[in-house]
Amino acid sequence: MSELSAKAEKLDAADELAAKRGEFVLDEVVYLDGNSLGALPANVPGQVSDVVLRQWGSLRIRSWEESGWWTAPERIGDRIAPLVGAAAGQIVVGDSTSVNVFKALVAAVRMAGEGRDEIVVDATTFPTDGYIAESAARMTGCTLRPVQPSQVPGVLGPRTAAVLLNHVDYRTGRLHDLPSLTAAVHAAGAYIVWDLCHSAGALPVGLDEHGVDLAVGCTYKYLNGGPGSPAYLYVRRDLQPRFDSPLPGWNSHAEPFGMRGDYEPASGALRGRVGTPDILSMLALEAALDVWEDVSIESVRAKSLALTDFFLECVGEYVPQGRVESLTPAAHEERGSQVALRCDDAGTVMKRLIERGVVGDFRAPDVLRFGFTPLYVGFADVERAARVLGEVVGGS
Amino acid sequence: MSELSAKAEKLDAADELAAKRGEFVLDEVVYLDGNSLGALPANVPGQVSDVVLRQWGSLRIRSWEESGWWTAPERIGDRIAPLVGAAAGQIVVGDSTSVNVFKALVAAVRMAGEGRDEIVVDATTFPTDGYIAESAARMTGCTLRPVQPSQVPGVLGPRTAAVLLNHVDYRTGRLHDLPSLTAAVHAAGAYIVWDLCHSAGALPVGLDEHGVDLAVGCTYKYLNGGPGSPAYLYVRRDLQPRFDSPLPGWNSHAEPFGMRGDYEPASGALRGRVGTPDILSMLALEAALDVWEDVSIESVRAKSLALTDFFLECVGEYVPQGRVESLTPAAHEERGSQVALRCDDAGTVMKRLIERGVVGDFRAPDVLRFGFTPLYVGFADVERAARVLGEVVGGS
Repeated sequence: MSELSAKAEKLDAADELAAKRGEFVLDEVVYLDGNSLGALPANVPGQVSDVVLRQWGSLRIRSWEESGWWTAPERIGDRIAPLVGAAAGQIVVGDSTSVNVFKALVAAVRMAGEGRDEIVVDATTFPTDGYIAESAARMTGCTLRPVQPSQVPGVLGPRTAAVLLNHVDYRTGRLHDLPSLTAAVHAAGAYIVWDLCHSAGALPVGLDEHGVDLAVGCTYKYLNGGPGSPAYLYVRRDLQPRFDSPLPGWNSHAEPFGMRGDYEPASGALRGRVGTPDILSMLALEAALDVWEDVSIESVRAKSLALTDFFLECVGEYVPQGRVESLTPAAHEERGSQVALRCDDAGTVMKRLIERGVVGDFRAPDVLRFGFTPLYVGFADVERAARVLGEVVGGS
Repeated sequence: MSELSAKAEKLDAADELAAKRGEFVLDEVVYLDGNSLGALPANVPGQVSDVVLRQWGSLRIRSWEESGWWTAPERIGDRIAPLVGAAAGQIVVGDSTSVNVFKALVAAVRMAGEGRDEIVVDATTFPTDGYIAESAARMTGCTLRPVQPSQVPGVLGPRTAAVLLNHVDYRTGRLHDLPSLTAAVHAAGAYIVWDLCHSAGALPVGLDEHGVDLAVGCTYKYLNGGPGSPAYLYVRRDLQPRFDSPLPGWNSHAEPFGMRGDYEPASGALRGRVGTPDILSMLALEAALDVWEDVSIESVRAKSLALTDFFLECVGEYVPQGRVESLTPAAHEERGSQVALRCDDAGTVMKRLIERGVVGDFRAPDVLRFGFTPLYVGFADVERAARVLGEVVGGS
């Protein structure tokens, strides 16, 4: 046994979260793509089957009340809330992340009011956020200003209406400083929208603590909600009365079954709802959230950092120097739960890794991306992944 | 056996679609609420189970390609196309009806161009369409003009940009004249958006034949896609290059995995996509559409009219005169696939009907709504529903 294997064994033996792996459906593959699609929690199939056969098949329309379908968006939002540091009543689940970015940005610009006509957006963002921000700017008469996150404080001013940032960069895994960036945006009198896709479920976010205005995120990465499971929208409680949605569907009406011609928004987080929620996907997500019941996000973060530290250590040992270059910051306070390695032939390398049972993903043109989900990835997995990577790129 | 029971028996015996009922999970209940939530097709549970256990649980991220997840929105759109009279390549599935109304209306206003700043909307519409139309008007600098559908031709003019109409009124069941209203809108140089929620799967729509510009619809009513299953958007082929979406998410990009900062829309119907599709709900819908494989929409329409005719006949026989009043037009060319009965104590009456195994729904303040899904409702069901209604309201 190599020194690193022995170390992995010790780390696994001391891992408080090790037993959590048993709550997922997994196999021999080292699955380091949970930052793209989380693995299947073992209790989801039973719940989905109940939703289809009993709730839909037998109760049919009665399930909107009797099975709690109607209130699912806010009920499941309250399940996500503690994972991102939010008190109940501020999150609704539904629609895609892109649609929620649109709601949040337009609402933020409307809150900012007259005279503020600039939307600042992370230039390195996951593209959809930038495209949607451009549309939100166009439809609210704003100018879009893409900048590097580190430059955000320098461009804020009296014309800034809203700022859209990613908590963790989808490509490099860099964690941005949410508290200080939020404070800077507030100091300029503007509103902040955080995209939590790559941080929720992997590290503490502290939405309430840091006074975040609005946030969005997906649920199919570290929250394991399933392919394309619905996204969520956070609107800070005191801003909810001013949340003026560009998508005021009947589900956000104060009296949805009143079938009234005039629109009167509901109070609270459910003002962020739009149309009929996709119940199958939504209740699969609800079941998937059960795995969090006895887990603290702090322990998840501690293990996540230990996993990425150990991966970088193993890569340093197994991969010939200069063959790959880490794009992920070494400093813990700047690192999410993934490691991105620049590698000239990344596309081919990832293909070979997958053939050999190590699943990460490739981001064009030259990035190998490895996501570490602390609930089901162990240290032996990490050692094996780095070892196979070393073999694939021609190391010892 | 009463005369009407005997007639029901004969009609059922001659019903070409009678065997279709066996393809659904049904029980002793007379289910006349398929215009709210379609019944469960029998092949859906197996398909959903495969999606969860094998595609997600075992293949995980590979399923985006290997299980056809990525192309599901346009593939399933092509399955819906023949049911609404559309050639392939013009429909994508995804998001809610409300979100699709927003996309379609904003795109229509943009197609109409400068100088056209009025959106005309059905004043009797399902409320969400009106709320979303108001938002679309506000965000495109238009004025919203709600009118009765029959008055639409009279208000069209050089300022009309877009018109949003329901093919079948959700409350009364009235079928509007799609060909002539479409022609009137076109004659005024404006664009038409049809909401097909209450017609698709119940009667022929003829989108291509009548030159409709844009259309939206849900899939959980007569298409039996399941609770909150994704909606769809039709964009006529020759208009697709000019379809300028207000929700340009990464799924509608010409090169979605290029992760490019600049937005370049894809060509074709998939320009209407936004974010990551909700795969569980979407693939349940795909399985649900199998029941249409050997069914013509013309035969469905013929049976639908026979069912509603027979229901009105039975109500005339079993319910004391003056106790209820049909809001649904008697003329076939003005009738969808439901019958709405005005009734002073409709809320209480519907509650009692449901207790006695006849499920319709109540729409405030005084409407009993009965939907007739020709694929699984038979004539004996109709006779029983009317008979129980007669007993509940105190008839013979």
